[in-house]
Amino acid sequence: MTNRIEHDLLGDETLPDNAWYGIQTLRALRNFNITGVPIHHFYDLINTLAMVKEASAEANHELGILSSKKTNAIRQACMRIREGELHNQFVVDLIQGGAGTSTNMNANEVIANLSLSIMGHEKGEYQYLHPNNDVNKSQSTNDAYPTAARLAIVLSTQTLIYALSSIKKSLEKKSEEFSGILKMGRTQLQDAVPMTLGQEFKAFAVTLGEDIQRIEETSKLLCEVNLGGTAIGTGINTHKDYAKSAISHLARISSLPVVAAEHLIEATSDMGAFVSMSSIQKRLAIKLSKICNDLRLLSSGPRAGFNEINLPAMQAGSSIMPGKVNPVIPEAVNQTAFQVIGHDLTVTMAAEAGQLQLNAMEPVIIYNILNSMKMLSSAIYMLDHRCIRGITANKEHCHHQVKDSIGMITALVPYIGYDNASRIARNALLSRSTVGELILKESLLDAATLDRLMSPQAMLNPMETPYEAAI
Amino acid sequence: MTNRIEHDLLGDETLPDNAWYGIQTLRALRNFNITGVPIHHFYDLINTLAMVKEASAEANHELGILSSKKTNAIRQACMRIREGELHNQFVVDLIQGGAGTSTNMNANEVIANLSLSIMGHEKGEYQYLHPNNDVNKSQSTNDAYPTAARLAIVLSTQTLIYALSSIKKSLEKKSEEFSGILKMGRTQLQDAVPMTLGQEFKAFAVTLGEDIQRIEETSKLLCEVNLGGTAIGTGINTHKDYAKSAISHLARISSLPVVAAEHLIEATSDMGAFVSMSSIQKRLAIKLSKICNDLRLLSSGPRAGFNEINLPAMQAGSSIMPGKVNPVIPEAVNQTAFQVIGHDLTVTMAAEAGQLQLNAMEPVIIYNILNSMKMLSSAIYMLDHRCIRGITANKEHCHHQVKDSIGMITALVPYIGYDNASRIARNALLSRSTVGELILKESLLDAATLDRLMSPQAMLNPMETPYEAAI
Amino acid sequence: MTNRIEHDLLGDETLPDNAWYGIQTLRALRNFNITGVPIHHFYDLINTLAMVKEASAEANHELGILSSKKTNAIRQACMRIREGELHNQFVVDLIQGGAGTSTNMNANEVIANLSLSIMGHEKGEYQYLHPNNDVNKSQSTNDAYPTAARLAIVLSTQTLIYALSSIKKSLEKKSEEFSGILKMGRTQLQDAVPMTLGQEFKAFAVTLGEDIQRIEETSKLLCEVNLGGTAIGTGINTHKDYAKSAISHLARISSLPVVAAEHLIEATSDMGAFVSMSSIQKRLAIKLSKICNDLRLLSSGPRAGFNEINLPAMQAGSSIMPGKVNPVIPEAVNQTAFQVIGHDLTVTMAAEAGQLQLNAMEPVIIYNILNSMKMLSSAIYMLDHRCIRGITANKEHCHHQVKDSIGMITALVPYIGYDNASRIARNALLSRSTVGELILKESLLDAATLDRLMSPQAMLNPMETPYEAAI
Amino acid sequence: MTNRIEHDLLGDETLPDNAWYGIQTLRALRNFNITGVPIHHFYDLINTLAMVKEASAEANHELGILSSKKTNAIRQACMRIREGELHNQFVVDLIQGGAGTSTNMNANEVIANLSLSIMGHEKGEYQYLHPNNDVNKSQSTNDAYPTAARLAIVLSTQTLIYALSSIKKSLEKKSEEFSGILKMGRTQLQDAVPMTLGQEFKAFAVTLGEDIQRIEETSKLLCEVNLGGTAIGTGINTHKDYAKSAISHLARISSLPVVAAEHLIEATSDMGAFVSMSSIQKRLAIKLSKICNDLRLLSSGPRAGFNEINLPAMQAGSSIMPGKVNPVIPEAVNQTAFQVIGHDLTVTMAAEAGQLQLNAMEPVIIYNILNSMKMLSSAIYMLDHRCIRGITANKEHCHHQVKDSIGMITALVPYIGYDNASRIARNALLSRSTVGELILKESLLDAATLDRLMSPQAMLNPMETPYEAAI
Repeated sequence: MTNRIEHDLLGDETLPDNAWYGIQTLRALRNFNITGVPIHHFYDLINTLAMVKEASAEANHELGILSSKKTNAIRQACMRIREGELHNQFVVDLIQGGAGTSTNMNANEVIANLSLSIMGHEKGEYQYLHPNNDVNKSQSTNDAYPTAARLAIVLSTQTLIYALSSIKKSLEKKSEEFSGILKMGRTQLQDAVPMTLGQEFKAFAVTLGEDIQRIEETSKLLCEVNLGGTAIGTGINTHKDYAKSAISHLARISSLPVVAAEHLIEATSDMGAFVSMSSIQKRLAIKLSKICNDLRLLSSGPRAGFNEINLPAMQAGSSIMPGKVNPVIPEAVNQTAFQVIGHDLTVTMAAEAGQLQLNAMEPVIIYNILNSMKMLSSAIYMLDHRCIRGITANKEHCHHQVKDSIGMITALVPYIGYDNASRIARNALLSRSTVGELILKESLLDAATLDRLMSPQAMLNPMETPYEAAI
Repeated sequence: MTNRIEHDLLGDETLPDNAWYGIQTLRALRNFNITGVPIHHFYDLINTLAMVKEASAEANHELGILSSKKTNAIRQACMRIREGELHNQFVVDLIQGGAGTSTNMNANEVIANLSLSIMGHEKGEYQYLHPNNDVNKSQSTNDAYPTAARLAIVLSTQTLIYALSSIKKSLEKKSEEFSGILKMGRTQLQDAVPMTLGQEFKAFAVTLGEDIQRIEETSKLLCEVNLGGTAIGTGINTHKDYAKSAISHLARISSLPVVAAEHLIEATSDMGAFVSMSSIQKRLAIKLSKICNDLRLLSSGPRAGFNEINLPAMQAGSSIMPGKVNPVIPEAVNQTAFQVIGHDLTVTMAAEAGQLQLNAMEPVIIYNILNSMKMLSSAIYMLDHRCIRGITANKEHCHHQVKDSIGMITALVPYIGYDNASRIARNALLSRSTVGELILKESLLDAATLDRLMSPQAMLNPMETPYEAAI
Repeated sequence: MTNRIEHDLLGDETLPDNAWYGIQTLRALRNFNITGVPIHHFYDLINTLAMVKEASAEANHELGILSSKKTNAIRQACMRIREGELHNQFVVDLIQGGAGTSTNMNANEVIANLSLSIMGHEKGEYQYLHPNNDVNKSQSTNDAYPTAARLAIVLSTQTLIYALSSIKKSLEKKSEEFSGILKMGRTQLQDAVPMTLGQEFKAFAVTLGEDIQRIEETSKLLCEVNLGGTAIGTGINTHKDYAKSAISHLARISSLPVVAAEHLIEATSDMGAFVSMSSIQKRLAIKLSKICNDLRLLSSGPRAGFNEINLPAMQAGSSIMPGKVNPVIPEAVNQTAFQVIGHDLTVTMAAEAGQLQLNAMEPVIIYNILNSMKMLSSAIYMLDHRCIRGITANKEHCHHQVKDSIGMITALVPYIGYDNASRIARNALLSRSTVGELILKESLLDAATLDRLMSPQAMLNPMETPYEAAI
Repeated sequence: MTNRIEHDLLGDETLPDNAWYGIQTLRALRNFNITGVPIHHFYDLINTLAMVKEASAEANHELGILSSKKTNAIRQACMRIREGELHNQFVVDLIQGGAGTSTNMNANEVIANLSLSIMGHEKGEYQYLHPNNDVNKSQSTNDAYPTAARLAIVLSTQTLIYALSSIKKSLEKKSEEFSGILKMGRTQLQDAVPMTLGQEFKAFAVTLGEDIQRIEETSKLLCEVNLGGTAIGTGINTHKDYAKSAISHLARISSLPVVAAEHLIEATSDMGAFVSMSSIQKRLAIKLSKICNDLRLLSSGPRAGFNEINLPAMQAGSSIMPGKVNPVIPEAVNQTAFQVIGHDLTVTMAAEAGQLQLNAMEPVIIYNILNSMKMLSSAIYMLDHRCIRGITANKEHCHHQVKDSIGMITALVPYIGYDNASRIARNALLSRSTVGELILKESLLDAATLDRLMSPQAMLNPMETPYEAAI
């Protein structure tokens, strides 16, 4: 294997011949070694970089400033990369200085060298096709990179939404399965009024379903791109028809509703849409964590806890306590949620740190959003397949708790008044009697009325007829 | 002045006769003394509590379970409160246990006593009209309180949006005023390519304008309420027609697009819309902080800084350094932004802490969102009136920096190539020459072409004609 | 009442004669109206401002640059303020631009005017004693203000530590009271192995006790002050002996171990000690929140929950569910904890925003730390007096759960091996038998050994003698 | 290659023969796939797991409950792992449910199988030496895992402290190199008073040096371990002399000052020391970010910025703007700081989520602290070697700015009074004169005095003699 020498502003460097990237990537590799996570950890980002470069080449060709020969080579190179080729050549660490220049140059260099190879040249023979002058033509890192990043985030929501839709269905199935299981609802961890376990799972399904909508709304914001703005949004070094053409090609290639941002200078430094997507990731994390907290509470026990449901056993629970089965899957989701919320703070601080015409902290923003997207998708898939689908209910125990409860008295307030009801409730607790016994003893209601009012039907729904209380 | 005695589950308590609230408020006053900030710090919340109580009374009346006499009294009491009466009777600390029960009971008690007075009774004569049985009829804290809180937040966005619209206009005015001032754009704090100061201020206007839209969108989510769900969302103790009627009255009274949430059990414990509103407050805080960072950078100096603009002097800057005038207004906005971002974390943690059928941490969520709303509105008003409107520009200094710049060479890349341009740039820096001098010296371009390419027109916009570079 | 006119860099302003503050305070009042919380919300800060001014006057007097007459007047003014006079004259909003200049000038002006009054002059006759030239002599806001703030924070820890010591004792008392109550320990919300309720409360006491030590350690860092550094830490405009003298007077007046920071330029911009104090506040908030989560779990029920302990009823729990008593005090503490953690984020961002020789965001840092200190102190006092001291235990229920448990089998692992124990545990759960029954049925141990191994003594402690298992 | 079958509570599974881990690790591998980062990303954690297992075996042996044969095998296995063997067998994802059980079992299984091999047995022949009964003897995950994690964190501070010490020295060297470069100090980004560039770099060195001390203090807290507490801190299944012996062996093996925690039940669920270490990581991140912000400000330009220093060029700065050299290294450090601060929030939320006798979220806490430690160490090394050491100063430009400054007038306040000085400053700014010219023009000072007072010596230090101002 022979090596080749490349040159830039800072001097010469030797590249191994099997490197499809060039000197600027090499310098970035040496400079940045913080996370150990390279670009190719997120294939969506590689794909959208290739889409941007292809769209740009097409626009340049249309404007007559990129030859057919070069355009064809670049188009073909980008398509091959999108099909999975050379992903391991996208090597720069995701936390990098330079506002993404290294990522952009890594793409420019790999695409240039692959195009050269397609044209029959050797790697590094940039006189035939140049990473900056040709692949990056009419672009700056400051528009090409965030455009690719925005679309990569949008693409990565597809996996997340798929996982969400799937867990929503699983929760709805459980909701039907548990529709006949009467249990105590709890507010502030105190026994409140009855409900069904099916209603509880339905609420989980509904709340996650809402976030699918929020993610889709926010994706639209990310489809507003600054391509054509180049360095600071003034469009310096582009032709006046370039932006429109490039964005139209990009929409076609990506099959996404890509549009130009309202004001390119604003769009170059604004991180608003990233912040919004990170916020919705946080919102989803909060909901997932709350659901998993509930699952862990409801399955607490088996004997000294709530014990309403059983999570499927996924592994031995303890290295010392035999037979213990722990809620390991929800626990892992809780932790994922905390990680995602931490990422959102990183995004927040990085977004605030933008200065003047650019936010130099874009790389860490993009890294954290892509990482959260991946982690949330995995965690939801895990929760769905390794927990929710296998949950079973302890029907008798749930029913017993409702019968034994004091909270049932709430249903009688319209008939006996709040003050009477408070007194009965307190006495029931102290005397370990049931509420019904005391009501009858005090002749506040007759037995038939009591039975009617305390039926599940009466307690789970609004009343069919106006009640007879003092008006 | 005589006192009165009231009674509840826990026993008797004496209330001063001038207290329009009752025993449950009194207990809450004793229990909670954390922030020192009472409900009446936020009059929007008092107003929407009164709206909910009025709407509920109307619905109960329609269903035949609240007499005309009581309904009239409650309606009148609520209207008087909304007109500003008795606001100082809403006294409970905003951080409170009980998921808002104390706030709800404070409203119930004040409204009951004002209604009693309207009916010709004494305070505390609850046999004629009862805080729980009548004012709170068909409601639970768990639906009445968050419904009022959601609408209070929506109302409070109106002040914020007004402030935002106003500062947006001021920024646009400055944008026009500064449209002829050519200056260096900067990326990563390094000289980049030229722009106008007007473009810079326009970008500020645009970015804030976007958040008006985001706030309006999120307000819609908050108009989905769980009124009628009572304790846990099953609607226990309401008539089946109550929810629809109450919400319809609430929409009428509030003039807001109030609708019922999709699933009342989900809606009772879900904090999603609060999280979304807090997130958009955070997003706005990030943008304000970035803008203020920019203003402070651009006005740094006067002699050893950027010195492009002058902020109006609002106070002596230093107790020791005479003549120093500091950017005190932007600094106060930065600090407000950090406070709001801190509030968002509080909201995040509180939202995650919900359990089962309720989130007991709602009070701190609501407090923080209302507080951020107030602080953001004040800060934006201050920034607009005490800073933006008085900004002046140092035109000559800005122009000089453009002429002296190296970044201008970017505009020549399409004509001389990236590698030539890099070399020239480096030499200009080392030799303290201008870029133009070296270009001519090396005969890379002739003088006429150079002049044309380096005109402001050429540098501030995309090119009218395709360039002549190698294609 | 007559008014007076004062003058500064920006022009003339009229002050009401009852204003002890002057023109610079007036301008700050107009400029800043963000939080509505004025300096005098925190009397510790007023006191330490007066201490710094007094110490500085003494040092200036010693160095011969402040006359006896002026020194005496300033000393007397500062002492009267520390005794509580004129606190309502410290009016500036705590979020302010200018890095604390307005707070410092508010102090300078009030002290100057009070000194003038002591000297027999009218307010505003600064020719006799000047806020800047005399009260602020040898100081800058940049050293006087953070010095006062640091000591104010240290003073405010005293209330917090008092509250912590007191709740620690209450928890220890409960620990003794509950020392005989055997209960199931739980890990991951699953039944684990037995312990006593006393041990559980002892752990609460120990964990809070540790934070008293951490607070005391961090207070020492805050006693390192930059007084004498003036504007940027170079000590410009001070005499070379000033810093030593002023700090020595400050230590005497405050009775705190005040020392000079190692490097005054570093100390002027460094927020490290503030960050550390905010971090320990956060740590304490985390612990309090965890304890309150536990109290809420242990008191969940009364019938469909853990029901191990009863929190004292502090107020009616629900506006709709009679007899419901909620854990309102722990819930308020949880919310306080979230607020404090939010404040810590505000401190974090403000600390990061320091630039070059100063951190202009000090006011929001100081506000948040003082606010958290006050809120934590109140919350701990509330938790101690309104919850912990009144907790009772449900002894029989706790004991029953231990007897019924499967987790007890852990104690047998050394004797029957992990694999046998796992099998028995699983069978006990499925067959609803007790662990002991199955052990005897399988003859894995004889009855006498089983009884010995399953005694509380055996299960609550390490073993007295090495066991007989396979070695 | 043949496979083997292992068995646990949940049934049989087939393991590839080259797997040194066993069935429980296999289940964990299937269950958890969130981060993609396995245990062996942090070799310190593998090493301390091996230390704990070795120490425990020694203690068990001393107590006569582990045979010499097994003890020897385990000791040898642990030593070989610490020397680097089989690290790739520590495969479980770092975000895992089960409170670390999977990590502990991964260690138990690898050590058991390596011990078996040392004893001449096949993998999986656990009848000769068992992962739970022997390697995990006298331990629970709940004491073994956090003990290992705490020590791993302590070990990982060594790399960080090394990096900090090294950059401190580099900064001190620069401080000496720049000791003669007079420049304007700035507060609030406004020109303040003079200092040297050397003083500025010295302050960076001092502030980072302080954090070395804080890290060392916090490491001591982490050396307090709960080994011997087993499941919940009661020490169930250990001999009464076990804890002391095991900890003593652990101290010997690790060469760290390991001691037993004060109260083992508290220590089992308490995350205080983790929170403290994460807080100090955050504090360090804040300082690094502030320093990097300063470096970027000071090197802004080259022509339209501060331009006081030059950072070494590490790569081409822009894909479109030739010759642009960006502060890529400080930018990467800023981003690392934001990531670390995000991690601290994750740790905060996870620490707050502990329940009753355990914090099930330990894995994410430990992962984030170890990750931050690694990232901080890398970032500091990068900043030191790729930036600080190559910084050069623009001496003339710095000097020029001092001469031209208005802030110099501060040094004259003691002589001409604050009000005179304010007026002069304002006039100088308006008239573009120097301060000195106006002073002389108004005869406020004579030329000789002016020269003396405005010498660098006079402005950079406190005064040698009391000044002559009005006293």
